[in-house]
Amino acid sequence: MSGRQHLLGIAGMDRATIEGYLDEAAAFLEVLDRDIPKVPALRGRTVVTLFFEESTRTRMSFETAAKRLSADTMSFAAASSSVRKGESLLDTVRTVDALGADALVVRHPAAGAPHRIAGWVDAAVINAGDGRHEHPTQALLDCFTLRAARGADLDGCRIGIVGDVRHSRVARSVVWAFSTLGAEVTLVAPPTLMPDGVDGWPARSVYDLDDVLDELDVVYVLRVQRERLGRALLPPMREYYARYGLSEARVARGKPDLLVMHPGPMIRGFEIAAAVADGPRSLVRDQVRNGVAVRMAVLFRCLGAGVSPAGGRADG
Amino acid sequence: MSGRQHLLGIAGMDRATIEGYLDEAAAFLEVLDRDIPKVPALRGRTVVTLFFEESTRTRMSFETAAKRLSADTMSFAAASSSVRKGESLLDTVRTVDALGADALVVRHPAAGAPHRIAGWVDAAVINAGDGRHEHPTQALLDCFTLRAARGADLDGCRIGIVGDVRHSRVARSVVWAFSTLGAEVTLVAPPTLMPDGVDGWPARSVYDLDDVLDELDVVYVLRVQRERLGRALLPPMREYYARYGLSEARVARGKPDLLVMHPGPMIRGFEIAAAVADGPRSLVRDQVRNGVAVRMAVLFRCLGAGVSPAGGRADG
Amino acid sequence: MSGRQHLLGIAGMDRATIEGYLDEAAAFLEVLDRDIPKVPALRGRTVVTLFFEESTRTRMSFETAAKRLSADTMSFAAASSSVRKGESLLDTVRTVDALGADALVVRHPAAGAPHRIAGWVDAAVINAGDGRHEHPTQALLDCFTLRAARGADLDGCRIGIVGDVRHSRVARSVVWAFSTLGAEVTLVAPPTLMPDGVDGWPARSVYDLDDVLDELDVVYVLRVQRERLGRALLPPMREYYARYGLSEARVARGKPDLLVMHPGPMIRGFEIAAAVADGPRSLVRDQVRNGVAVRMAVLFRCLGAGVSPAGGRADG
Repeated sequence: MSGRQHLLGIAGMDRATIEGYLDEAAAFLEVLDRDIPKVPALRGRTVVTLFFEESTRTRMSFETAAKRLSADTMSFAAASSSVRKGESLLDTVRTVDALGADALVVRHPAAGAPHRIAGWVDAAVINAGDGRHEHPTQALLDCFTLRAARGADLDGCRIGIVGDVRHSRVARSVVWAFSTLGAEVTLVAPPTLMPDGVDGWPARSVYDLDDVLDELDVVYVLRVQRERLGRALLPPMREYYARYGLSEARVARGKPDLLVMHPGPMIRGFEIAAAVADGPRSLVRDQVRNGVAVRMAVLFRCLGAGVSPAGGRADG
Repeated sequence: MSGRQHLLGIAGMDRATIEGYLDEAAAFLEVLDRDIPKVPALRGRTVVTLFFEESTRTRMSFETAAKRLSADTMSFAAASSSVRKGESLLDTVRTVDALGADALVVRHPAAGAPHRIAGWVDAAVINAGDGRHEHPTQALLDCFTLRAARGADLDGCRIGIVGDVRHSRVARSVVWAFSTLGAEVTLVAPPTLMPDGVDGWPARSVYDLDDVLDELDVVYVLRVQRERLGRALLPPMREYYARYGLSEARVARGKPDLLVMHPGPMIRGFEIAAAVADGPRSLVRDQVRNGVAVRMAVLFRCLGAGVSPAGGRADG
Repeated sequence: MSGRQHLLGIAGMDRATIEGYLDEAAAFLEVLDRDIPKVPALRGRTVVTLFFEESTRTRMSFETAAKRLSADTMSFAAASSSVRKGESLLDTVRTVDALGADALVVRHPAAGAPHRIAGWVDAAVINAGDGRHEHPTQALLDCFTLRAARGADLDGCRIGIVGDVRHSRVARSVVWAFSTLGAEVTLVAPPTLMPDGVDGWPARSVYDLDDVLDELDVVYVLRVQRERLGRALLPPMREYYARYGLSEARVARGKPDLLVMHPGPMIRGFEIAAAVADGPRSLVRDQVRNGVAVRMAVLFRCLGAGVSPAGGRADG
């Protein structure tokens, strides 16, 4: 199969490429609305999820996307693998590649692991999150969701990304995607959770949510990754929520058409109020649903399949 | 897809509804005897097993049923999921729902969890066991198996349910199913393993198996759930087997056409003799096999698919 | 479905039978080169991997083979199963069998377990590794790979099997397969890692690799199974590599067309040099790739499917 390509990150990707993915995803979203939401575009292809760090929601989203395209799926969980017998990353991925995988969807705790893997295999490599580095399909689905909710491009859209920016690969990917599409991004975090080198990011950064809340069109709430934080970095829960939590009161003080996003999993009452997460401005459910269409587009493009999906018949 | 419905419990279900499931299952059992035991009834549908408590045999039975109906299957094991990152049950199931699941097959340690989930999602929810509460597909497959083995309805059939009734959701479901179909049910357990409020159950209760053995048409042996019992509740193994174990000697003292059932997994020599479990009166293997047909019927009905399965062509 | 047969071991299998599997595998290897590498040969059949000991690479190879044949696959991992609730092996496998499995691919830590299981079930049983006993599909794929690399039969081929022969089921299977096909096998191991009763094996045994290196056409490197070794048996790593490791220097001293094999997973720098594993004489990648074709042949034969695979259309 010719025309394979990898999706390793968003930083450096140009606007036309990003919008190409989004347009393809729009066609696949229509497929998901059919009575039989399936096209034969990747029949006979094998998509392997290779997760060296567990993420059930991301893995299931990719598996759903692959099945909707009629691909075969397999799951490689490093926790129960030959990795524990001392095998190197190189040999593990080469083995999966030699078994005949067409795409490797890789989640790895080390930044850059998908890039290294892409150099070792014939399969297309899709980065499903690497360390604090990138999570490109999350950024694409967020752009897609926001574009659809606005019914317009992101040009001039003011987006605040709130929370633990420092440890978030999601933040690293969405900042580039949003800004490349013309949005004005503001990072909002306490100093201890602001990343080093933030001056190089295409965004301004502030420490106080209430200082900027009234200018924002979108609040993008990050998960506080308690498992990655030492006690020293994390403010007490009550104090954190008081300053950065997206409460109903804060939403009420924002613009009347403020939109709320969160990449999940959410911790209600810590970073976002339950009523906000479930409220009318929340795009959380759309993000999950659109994620399947976006990942269909990514798999379809990365595997270089030539058939137009919109025209494909459902015969999986 | 319209016409979705949940299957949350047996208690309160009327006879016609139960028999409807059993009749549908009979049609699917014929499918399982075909050379290619598969129908396209649920092609393009996604069935997700969402097990917050592991049960390989129940999960595999549902997965087999779904594949026989040509559905796509996915498995969500809570042990390795975002549940561990602090996500709420609400967000977990809403995420799976938003990914496009058509049916959620839920096993949960808390009684009532499937009911709560059913209120949160678009998917059909099927209870695959919740705490000590219910396990409705087990009850349906037991009714199906017993009806087939008798070649007759259950009216007047005398069934003894023997063992740890107190901690058994299976007991809670089968008692209602058997009695609704006209059987006369007797619970047999030591006082410590008899449930509170047993007077409200549609069954009489006795403490001594040998007192009632000669009247029974069926002995339904429950698993002793050693992992749920404190030392205080559980009689010593030898004593338990002497009083409640289904030994060969006991079977010999019962009716000549006594039937033996067990929902599995069995602990041979503790609650049932190996020779009885494998003997000619045992329906254990039929229970497992019929379970696939019954779960096909449940998935088919709950997903509101309109095509008659018996007429479906195998083209999965 | 009639004509089912088991594949439990290589010892005692005659040459014509082994070559029959290899010839069948050659036809399936062509399928893997197609644009849609899939045939409908086992549509509607269910292949269950039943691994009582984890081996991701072997499990994935069988699953890939089954999916290429359009079979449904299910995975039973004993670690999270009713085995932990006290269920016997007999009941576990009978349950899986009663669910309708057509083939059980069994990995078990106890030698002989697949043989016992074969006596209990209707399904075809394929041994995917039992204790220190056998790993027959590994031997078949090694024969296939070596035959293809030589472009000739194995008659007269001199093969050295180097490493922890004592604890290796792979060694036990390949020795019989290679010698039945006419190769001359030499076991090379320190005395502590040479098996008891090695005189009964169809091979000579030596303690020093350098004594025999220049006569060998093939060096088959075994994994040192550190997890199975006590400190008493295992020489220190540096010393082991000095005497038995397949270094670049050793390969340079061997025949100019020396071939190198390893069943994986490899521990680079311990039993084999990275440059050798990745070098031009290494067949490691071919072993993995051919493994899928060989396992397709095994599943196809054991399930007694009557259709010629080469003529099958891809319509999975």
